[in-house]
Amino acid sequence: MYYPEPIENLIINLMKLPGIGRKTATRLAFFLLNSDESYISELSRSLTDIKDKIRLCSVCYNLTEKDPCQICSDERRDRDTLCVVEEPSHMMVIEASYPNRYRYHILHGVINPLDGIGPDDIHINELKLRIEKENIKEIIVATNPNIEGNTTAHYISEILKGSQVRITRIAFGIPIGGDIIYTDSQTIKSSIENRKDL
Amino acid sequence: MYYPEPIENLIINLMKLPGIGRKTATRLAFFLLNSDESYISELSRSLTDIKDKIRLCSVCYNLTEKDPCQICSDERRDRDTLCVVEEPSHMMVIEASYPNRYRYHILHGVINPLDGIGPDDIHINELKLRIEKENIKEIIVATNPNIEGNTTAHYISEILKGSQVRITRIAFGIPIGGDIIYTDSQTIKSSIENRKDL
Repeated sequence: MYYPEPIENLIINLMKLPGIGRKTATRLAFFLLNSDESYISELSRSLTDIKDKIRLCSVCYNLTEKDPCQICSDERRDRDTLCVVEEPSHMMVIEASYPNRYRYHILHGVINPLDGIGPDDIHINELKLRIEKENIKEIIVATNPNIEGNTTAHYISEILKGSQVRITRIAFGIPIGGDIIYTDSQTIKSSIENRKDL
Repeated sequence: MYYPEPIENLIINLMKLPGIGRKTATRLAFFLLNSDESYISELSRSLTDIKDKIRLCSVCYNLTEKDPCQICSDERRDRDTLCVVEEPSHMMVIEASYPNRYRYHILHGVINPLDGIGPDDIHINELKLRIEKENIKEIIVATNPNIEGNTTAHYISEILKGSQVRITRIAFGIPIGGDIIYTDSQTIKSSIENRKDL
């Protein structure tokens, strides 16, 4: 015994979304069944719009409607520094702390040999060319503090050896407002190794 | 600083779904951005399909593509009994226990004076007419064991007083596999009051 086919189809399609099982998908499907037609058509259009209207910026690989993107076209931002991030969403997190300050380079992934992702599969070569072309003075590598993020950071510093650019990495340690008692040993190690004079 | 407008629109539309906040909506939007175009168009079509293709059965008010629905057209089912449920999803739960056995009447709601929902706002009058027309012998009222479900069950039994139909309500008590120690006092009361001879 199943729901009528159009409802089953919707449930099955919703179940392909991350973190959504059959129960949640069914709940969402019934919510949608009881929603206004105008909301359904808006949601449906906004889904197809992201495929039709969104592309990657040819400079920084940010998601954008216009090329170059709003950030690359923003004259207020520091022209000497680039923040290198894994994903567009990571860029947004840095923007929230430093609005309109930095320009970015979005790798769209990290080096991950186990998944068969090498340096040529992410936008690393484009980063190197860009540093030369735009005469960048510093890159702040803001990849995640895990194996893939570290590997990627090291690879970037390797291929830029001999160039004049300063390469820095964001600091890892106990988060502000965190508590030493709840901090894992890797983080403690990082915060001891990277201690600063008071 | 926001994402490009098409992405923001999608996030805002996803946030209108129940239980989905900005964080989850953003995660879903980025998943969708990285999905195949074919999946996006399928999901989008399945959304509009539920509005275009799904209607209510004119007999039982089940959701259906054809009228009367598959269940009402199923000759194997008991013609003397109707299960009265609040929602189509509740019908599915009973079907899972008793496949192809009962026919249903779906109220699409419960009486809830606080929300301004009276008997005329749900399919109760249609139930009364149907019992006469189809010469139903028993209705099993399977509304939820809460104030609204109880009120609705009592209202149904009131308006059917004097008719020949037997009106029963599903039993409430400790669920099978449950444990008395974790059972709330209302459920214990119900299970004591409705005790049976061994």
